[in-house]
Amino acid sequence: MSNLRIPGPTPVPPEIQEAMATQMFNHRGPAFSKHIGEATEKLQDFFQTTNDLLLLTASGTGGLEASIVNFFSPGDHILAVSIGYFGDRIATIAEGYGANVQRLSFEWGSAADPKVIKEALANNPEIKGVLVTHNETSTGITNNLEAIAKEVTKANKLLVVDGVSSAGSIPLLTDDWGCDVVVSGSQKGWMIPPGLAMISVSEKAWEANKSASMPRFYFDLTQAKSYLERGQTPWTPAISIVVALNVALDMLMKEGREAVFERHHRIANRVRDGVEKLGLTLYADPNHRSDTVTAVSAPNGIELTEMLRILREEQDVILATGQGPLAGKIFRVGHLGWVPDQAINELLEKLEETLSTASITQQ
Amino acid sequence: MSNLRIPGPTPVPPEIQEAMATQMFNHRGPAFSKHIGEATEKLQDFFQTTNDLLLLTASGTGGLEASIVNFFSPGDHILAVSIGYFGDRIATIAEGYGANVQRLSFEWGSAADPKVIKEALANNPEIKGVLVTHNETSTGITNNLEAIAKEVTKANKLLVVDGVSSAGSIPLLTDDWGCDVVVSGSQKGWMIPPGLAMISVSEKAWEANKSASMPRFYFDLTQAKSYLERGQTPWTPAISIVVALNVALDMLMKEGREAVFERHHRIANRVRDGVEKLGLTLYADPNHRSDTVTAVSAPNGIELTEMLRILREEQDVILATGQGPLAGKIFRVGHLGWVPDQAINELLEKLEETLSTASITQQ
Repeated sequence: MSNLRIPGPTPVPPEIQEAMATQMFNHRGPAFSKHIGEATEKLQDFFQTTNDLLLLTASGTGGLEASIVNFFSPGDHILAVSIGYFGDRIATIAEGYGANVQRLSFEWGSAADPKVIKEALANNPEIKGVLVTHNETSTGITNNLEAIAKEVTKANKLLVVDGVSSAGSIPLLTDDWGCDVVVSGSQKGWMIPPGLAMISVSEKAWEANKSASMPRFYFDLTQAKSYLERGQTPWTPAISIVVALNVALDMLMKEGREAVFERHHRIANRVRDGVEKLGLTLYADPNHRSDTVTAVSAPNGIELTEMLRILREEQDVILATGQGPLAGKIFRVGHLGWVPDQAINELLEKLEETLSTASITQQ
Repeated sequence: MSNLRIPGPTPVPPEIQEAMATQMFNHRGPAFSKHIGEATEKLQDFFQTTNDLLLLTASGTGGLEASIVNFFSPGDHILAVSIGYFGDRIATIAEGYGANVQRLSFEWGSAADPKVIKEALANNPEIKGVLVTHNETSTGITNNLEAIAKEVTKANKLLVVDGVSSAGSIPLLTDDWGCDVVVSGSQKGWMIPPGLAMISVSEKAWEANKSASMPRFYFDLTQAKSYLERGQTPWTPAISIVVALNVALDMLMKEGREAVFERHHRIANRVRDGVEKLGLTLYADPNHRSDTVTAVSAPNGIELTEMLRILREEQDVILATGQGPLAGKIFRVGHLGWVPDQAINELLEKLEETLSTASITQQ
């Protein structure tokens, strides 16, 4: 088994592989109702919410699309707070559906400043909603969502949170912080394959939904809510992933929500310390480093592509490259979901070994 | 193992269950490139096309949405040929995205008349595209797609085909018949779990795409095509289902495409004969009965819901109810994908046994 250390898909434990191999059953029958009902309740616990929690058969990006098209109308003013690749993506989705998007971008590698968001909201009363990435997978930064949410709720705007690579791995207090819409994706901290997006929807968001006129069908959350009340999904769901989700959530609940979060923090510290001990430089602002993905600056004088190739082909350690403007400038280590300590130890050993390989030195 | 005989999800063979249990790997790495490259080529063989063939992480309905939003603009005139529930669904999707949809509905249980379609096209030159369901899952009817396609191509309109429950199970000659866009779903004849939609796109459809202005992001097929050229998908794909798809396609190709189609025809005949021998009445027009799903009229004097409950709870035979206006009026037997002869024999025996149960007779 490869040491797969990208920020999703993440490795799946043996119990999950067994669950994934489920025989098919009727998605309009009692067995599926039980599955989706249980998975929903457990997810609400991890999202720390009593809001509606809906499952979509799609990747996290599909969930992000759902988080826009269900709550806004073309022409609506939206503030898109971006600190990287995925912050830009959700802004692009909103623009594509005709929203009037004001991008508030912060330097990649840094976190969003709640005070600047507060000012932007004060200066632009026409803004209806705010899009925020909780954990920016492309830069390894976790925004101070609590502080941001405080400003957004104070201004009484709709708060849409991309929690794809945070929910289930680090604290995300949906209700306490006042997050109206929160999106996650199955292949992240949830330890299961890609194929499902999860999305929580507050009362305030449902209220916005009533007048939201962006077109939608597959991602129509009113349909998802209505079918969930009968223990179903409107369209045929990714059954094997739902079954796996239930098993994964049982494992996570057995460990305990707070213990899961603590484990992610401990493992992240181990990665950060280990990488720095190898003489490498962490890319992200030290005050906002993510507990689910660590971005490392490309070492001086090293051929990054060749380093990653050797790690992949000779060491069976799979790391992620940089995205967008960070391509070639950083590499990323995913440490969310199922991350045995031993896997991190091996990763660091093999990284050290590879760094000393003559062939990766730039000519 | 239940005798799951609904028109999708269909049972998965043991080889597929093993494939579904795959450990995760990098969707931006060489292993995934190989998987998607191979799956694409094999699917093209079953779709009998050299057109682009794209995979989406979604149910078949997501594929239907993609078949609309990528090729039309709000206000475009579309002829939606409907013979049932799914024909109505794709028309609704097109309307939702602002198309000017002219519905051409035929009586449920009958097929579409190519001559009527020809007339509609002649009388409405403003029509840009035609939506046709190849196999209507809700009524057990297979349209004469070849004859319909002849009229649509003669009129030089874009032909969008819902092949969700036909492709891979019955002949669908995408190129020979001139189908511009064809959609299928993984949980049908392909013997794998739900979670993937497949969609083929002709040159003519790509030409239409250039000026198509319906909003889209997750289902943007130009992104899917561009990433496929690098052996990737734009968003994280349902890896375990793609792996299963490759194994299933190998099994189907080993059997042989035409042999797969013949098997479906033989099994369908066995179901139809068996049901009629029990004194039941087939719902669909005898000239257009589907080889993938059989609709049976609710027997007179029988409590249909109770009959299906007994079959499910006591006999472990899972059949489908009627949809929309056919709820309570028919039941449906799915016989696409992995259908051992023995499963059909057992189904017929248990249906006979249940029909003789006193408790299902109406008071």
